[in-house]
Amino acid sequence: MPVYTLTTTVGMLSSQTKASLAGEIGRIHSEINHVPATYVNVVYQELPVDNVYAGGEPAAPVLVNGWVREGHDEEETSRLALEIASAVTEFTSVPEDRVVVVFQSSPARFAVELGRLLPDPGHEADWVASIKNGQPTVHR
Amino acid sequence: MPVYTLTTTVGMLSSQTKASLAGEIGRIHSEINHVPATYVNVVYQELPVDNVYAGGEPAAPVLVNGWVREGHDEEETSRLALEIASAVTEFTSVPEDRVVVVFQSSPARFAVELGRLLPDPGHEADWVASIKNGQPTVHR
Amino acid sequence: MPVYTLTTTVGMLSSQTKASLAGEIGRIHSEINHVPATYVNVVYQELPVDNVYAGGEPAAPVLVNGWVREGHDEEETSRLALEIASAVTEFTSVPEDRVVVVFQSSPARFAVELGRLLPDPGHEADWVASIKNGQPTVHR
Repeated sequence: MPVYTLTTTVGMLSSQTKASLAGEIGRIHSEINHVPATYVNVVYQELPVDNVYAGGEPAAPVLVNGWVREGHDEEETSRLALEIASAVTEFTSVPEDRVVVVFQSSPARFAVELGRLLPDPGHEADWVASIKNGQPTVHR
Repeated sequence: MPVYTLTTTVGMLSSQTKASLAGEIGRIHSEINHVPATYVNVVYQELPVDNVYAGGEPAAPVLVNGWVREGHDEEETSRLALEIASAVTEFTSVPEDRVVVVFQSSPARFAVELGRLLPDPGHEADWVASIKNGQPTVHR
Repeated sequence: MPVYTLTTTVGMLSSQTKASLAGEIGRIHSEINHVPATYVNVVYQELPVDNVYAGGEPAAPVLVNGWVREGHDEEETSRLALEIASAVTEFTSVPEDRVVVVFQSSPARFAVELGRLLPDPGHEADWVASIKNGQPTVHR
C-alpha cells in the first residue's frame, strides 16, 4: 500500500544497497504500520549530478518521500520517519545531514490496489482476507 | 491542472501504449472532474529493473500518483481512482495485482497554471473564460 | 527542509539554467518561508519526449512540485507558488502556459532532517540553534 521514492544522484548506491535498504524499509514499515511487507513499494530515482541541488549548489542527498494512508497515529508516523531516516544512513553510509525524509498522506479511499479501494488503517486484515477469499490474485 | 505520474520499469510500456493511456487518463479525468482534457498532464517515470522493489524483492508494478485540487467530492475521487486503475490494466495488460493508484490533493490556491492560481473545483469554467478574455496564451 | 521537483523533457534546460534556477528557488523560498536557503532542495527530472503528455498529446512543460511543512500562512503559499512560477518562466524562457506549479504539505512532525523531526513553521531558528549546539554536522 505505501510507496517510498528515494531520490539520489547516479552511482551513490550499489545494487546490493538498493535491494537491502528496500527490504529494511519494508520491515520497518510493516512493524510500525501493520501492513504486510510485500505491500511496501520502494523505488529509486537516480539523477545526474547536475540535476540535484541544495541551496543552489550541487548536492548528493538521499531524499525520501513516503506516502501512507491518512488516519495512522501521528506519533507513529513521526517514529516511522525517524526510523526510516536512521535506516537510510545505516545502509547507505550517507550521513544524516544529507538525508531528508518526508511523509505525505491522503485518505485510503483515494487509493486503489488489487482493483479495490484501500482499507483505512486498522482494517488491513479484513481487506487482505476479503481479497484472498474473493480474488485469487497474488500481490508481487 | 492535474498531474499524473506513472512509475514503471524500463521497457514495460511501448511508446504507443504510453500515448494512448495518457489520452485515456485525460478522458476519464475530464469526465469525472470536469477539467478540459488538455489540462491533464501525464508523465512516465521508467526506472531500471534494480530500482523498483515490493517487499524487498525486484518488482514490475505500475505506480500511479495523481494530484488533484482539494474540494472534489470524495466519492468522485474514489471513482476516479478505480477507473484509472482499471484503465491502466486495460491499456497495459499489467494485471491489477501490480497496479497501485494513489491520489493526493492540496488547495487550488497552492497551485499555479498560466501564471494564475487555480480555481476551486466547480469554478473551472469562469477561470478558463477569464484566461481567454484577458490572456491570449493557449495551454498545450 | 522543502523539496522541489521540476519535471521537464530531456534537453529543455541547460546545466547553467538548472543551477541558476535552483539558486533562485532557494532565494524565493527562503524569503517567503523563512528557511535558510541551504535547506532548500531542488531536483530535476528530465524525461524522454515520449514520456510527457498533456491532453494525450506530447508536451514540453515544466511541472514543479514543491513540498512544504503544514502551517504556513495560506496566502504566503499562494504567493510562493506565483513567484516560483514566474521565476521558472524568467529563467527558462518557457512561457507561462507550459508552467505548472503545485505545492503539497504535511505536518512538520512527519518529516526528518539531520536525524530530527522538523520544526513547525515559526520555530526554525530554535531548531537550527539546537542543532548547532548539540550536533556539529553541517547541512550541505
